[in-house]
Amino acid sequence: MPENLNLVPFVSVEAMMDLVLSIGTERFLRELAGYIEADFHRWESFDKTPRVASHSRDGVIELMPTSDGRLYGFKYVNGHPKNTKSGRQTVTAFGVLSDVDSGYPVLLSEMTILTALRTAATSAVAARHLARSNARCMALIGNGAQSEFQALAFKALLGVDRLRLHDIDPAASRRCRDNLSALGFSIEICGSAEQAVEGADIVTTVTADKQNATILTDNMIGAGMHINAVGGDCPGKTELHRDILLRSDIFVEFPPQTRIEGEIQQLDKDHPVTELWRVIAGSAPGRTRADQITLFDSVGFATEDFSALRYVRDKLSETGRFDTLDLLADPDEPRDLFGMLLRRQALTQQAAAPQ
Amino acid sequence: MPENLNLVPFVSVEAMMDLVLSIGTERFLRELAGYIEADFHRWESFDKTPRVASHSRDGVIELMPTSDGRLYGFKYVNGHPKNTKSGRQTVTAFGVLSDVDSGYPVLLSEMTILTALRTAATSAVAARHLARSNARCMALIGNGAQSEFQALAFKALLGVDRLRLHDIDPAASRRCRDNLSALGFSIEICGSAEQAVEGADIVTTVTADKQNATILTDNMIGAGMHINAVGGDCPGKTELHRDILLRSDIFVEFPPQTRIEGEIQQLDKDHPVTELWRVIAGSAPGRTRADQITLFDSVGFATEDFSALRYVRDKLSETGRFDTLDLLADPDEPRDLFGMLLRRQALTQQAAAPQ
Repeated sequence: MPENLNLVPFVSVEAMMDLVLSIGTERFLRELAGYIEADFHRWESFDKTPRVASHSRDGVIELMPTSDGRLYGFKYVNGHPKNTKSGRQTVTAFGVLSDVDSGYPVLLSEMTILTALRTAATSAVAARHLARSNARCMALIGNGAQSEFQALAFKALLGVDRLRLHDIDPAASRRCRDNLSALGFSIEICGSAEQAVEGADIVTTVTADKQNATILTDNMIGAGMHINAVGGDCPGKTELHRDILLRSDIFVEFPPQTRIEGEIQQLDKDHPVTELWRVIAGSAPGRTRADQITLFDSVGFATEDFSALRYVRDKLSETGRFDTLDLLADPDEPRDLFGMLLRRQALTQQAAAPQ
Repeated sequence: MPENLNLVPFVSVEAMMDLVLSIGTERFLRELAGYIEADFHRWESFDKTPRVASHSRDGVIELMPTSDGRLYGFKYVNGHPKNTKSGRQTVTAFGVLSDVDSGYPVLLSEMTILTALRTAATSAVAARHLARSNARCMALIGNGAQSEFQALAFKALLGVDRLRLHDIDPAASRRCRDNLSALGFSIEICGSAEQAVEGADIVTTVTADKQNATILTDNMIGAGMHINAVGGDCPGKTELHRDILLRSDIFVEFPPQTRIEGEIQQLDKDHPVTELWRVIAGSAPGRTRADQITLFDSVGFATEDFSALRYVRDKLSETGRFDTLDLLADPDEPRDLFGMLLRRQALTQQAAAPQ
C-alpha cells in the first residue's frame, strides 16, 4: 500500500481481469460470495439508502453509497440498453472505498467486470438458501454480458452443471455456450423461454430491455422452482408476469429500493416480502418446503458493491495488481493548499530557467 | 480526446496545478466564474437534489450529483476537521463528468484544488450581485486552505485589494499574508474578528470547526455590509449569531439543502430567502440599497462542481494536461464481457508459453 497520502490504489479494467484470472473465476466468485454473505449477516451495521438515480430518455446513471462505520463505499453505474448499438456496454461501473475516519479514498476500481461478478455471486448466495438443495439444472434466459457469470457462480456455489439457454437473439445463446464450453457444463440452447424452463430447478432471468416485459408467464413455473430474477431492476422494467409473484415467496435485498425497482413494483406496497439478510442471519426461514416457489427479486444493492470493493482491496497486497493515482492534494502543511500551488509554480519556473 | 472507449481522461492533482498555473489563477477564477454564472442562469434546466451525506463521529462523506440533461456530474467530498492533526486535508474531493446519452464518464478529476477554486469563484459571483459596487476592502476570517482562493476570486471579479485577516491561529494568518504578498493586496493581520471587520465592505467567514460557533456577533455588522458566509456548511455547523441573520437579506443556492446545512438552519423553516440564481437571471433583485445588509449563505451546491468540471474539460484539449485511465470495460463485442476475460486469459497464457 502506498505511503504517500496523495496516492490512491487504482484497479483498471486490465488489472481487474488479471486479478480475476490469477485467482480463478470460480474461486473469485466463491470468496466474493463469502464477503457478500458476511456483510448481509451484519446488515444492521450498515448505513442504507436507496440508490440515487438520474433518469434520462435512454438510460439511467446511479450512485450507490453505503457505510459500515469503518469503511464507506459507493458505486457509479449506468444502464443504457441502446449502448450496444454504438459498441458500448449497457452497464459500466466504477467504485470507490474510503476510510470513514479520515474520509480519504483507499481504493478506486473499475466495476463493470466486478459488478457482473458481484451480481452473480449475490444470486448464488440467495439461491443457496432458497433453491432446493439438489438443484443442478438452471434455465438461463437472457444470454448477454451477465449470463456466463451467473452460470459460473451457480456452478461454484451450488454445483449447477446443466444449463438451458434462451435469448431472443440466437447468436447470444451460441456465444454464451461457446464461452462456457470448456468449463464443465452440459448446455442446451432452447428456442423459447418456455422450452428453456422445462426440467429446470432454477430459472435465472437476466434480460436487458428497459420496459415491462413478460419473460416468464405463470404456466411456465412449476412447484419447487427457484426464480432468480435479475434483469428487472429499475422503475418500469420487469420480467415476470404478476401472477407468478402472487404464487411465490418473495425475497429481496432492501425493500425501500426493491419496491421501486424490482418485480414487486407490480404489487401492492404492503405485499409481504422477506429480507434476504434475515434468512442469512437465521432470523427468517428461506425455503421450507420442496414444492414451494421461491423468488429472489434481485435489483442489486450498495452493500454488495461494498463487499466486492472490500474483497478486491484485500486481494491487492496478495496479487500486487494495481496502479496508484495522484488523486488527493497533499500539501507539506495540510492547511496550505494555495502554498502547494505556489511551490509548484516556483519548481516549474526553476526547471524552465536557463542553467 | 481518446478514441478508445475504455479510456477516460484523468486530471491528477499535479495536472490540475499545472492547468491552473498555465492559465493563471486569477484568469482561471474569472473564466470559471463565467461557467458558474452561466449555469446559475439556466438553473431550471438542472436535475437538483440535496447532497447525499454519510455522517460519522469525526466527519462527513458526501456525494453531490446533478445533470443538465446532456451532461451528468458528481463530486465526492469529505469534511474531517481533525484530519489536519494527521497531516491530511480537512476537505478532499474528486469528481466525474459523464455523457447522459451513453452514461459513459468523459472526465475524472481531482477536485480538492478545484473545489477551493469553485467555492471562491461562486462567492465572488454572488458578491458581484450583492456587495456594494465600490467594495474594495474585505475581512477574511478563518485563514485556512480556502482563504487565499477567496481573496484572489474577490480581486479577480470585484477588484478587492485590501484584506483584513483574522484566525484563532496567528500562524495561519501569517501564512495567508505571505502566500498573497506578491499578488497585489494591501494586507493587515488583526487580533480579533471584531478588529478585522472594522472598515471592511465585505466579510468572508471561512472557518473549519464542526460546531455552532459565533464568529460574528450582531454588533460587528454595520449598514451596507455584504457577508459571505462560507464555513457553515453542514448540520450543526454555523458561524454567525442568529441576530445577524434577522437583520440581513439572505441569498442561498438551493433552499432544500441550505435550510439543513447553512446559517439559516438557525431560523424558522419558512424564513424568507432569495435564490441566487433568480438574482443572476434577473427575476429577483440583489442589493437594492447602499445601507442594506446582504448575506450569501453559501454551502456549496452540485451545479457549481458541474460548472467546474465542465470548465476543466473544455480546457483539456487546449492545454493537453491530462492522463487517460483504463476505467471502462470495452470488449470487442459489447455483450461479450466474459469473452473479454477469456481472450485476456488466452493472451496471458500465450505470452507465458515457451517460444
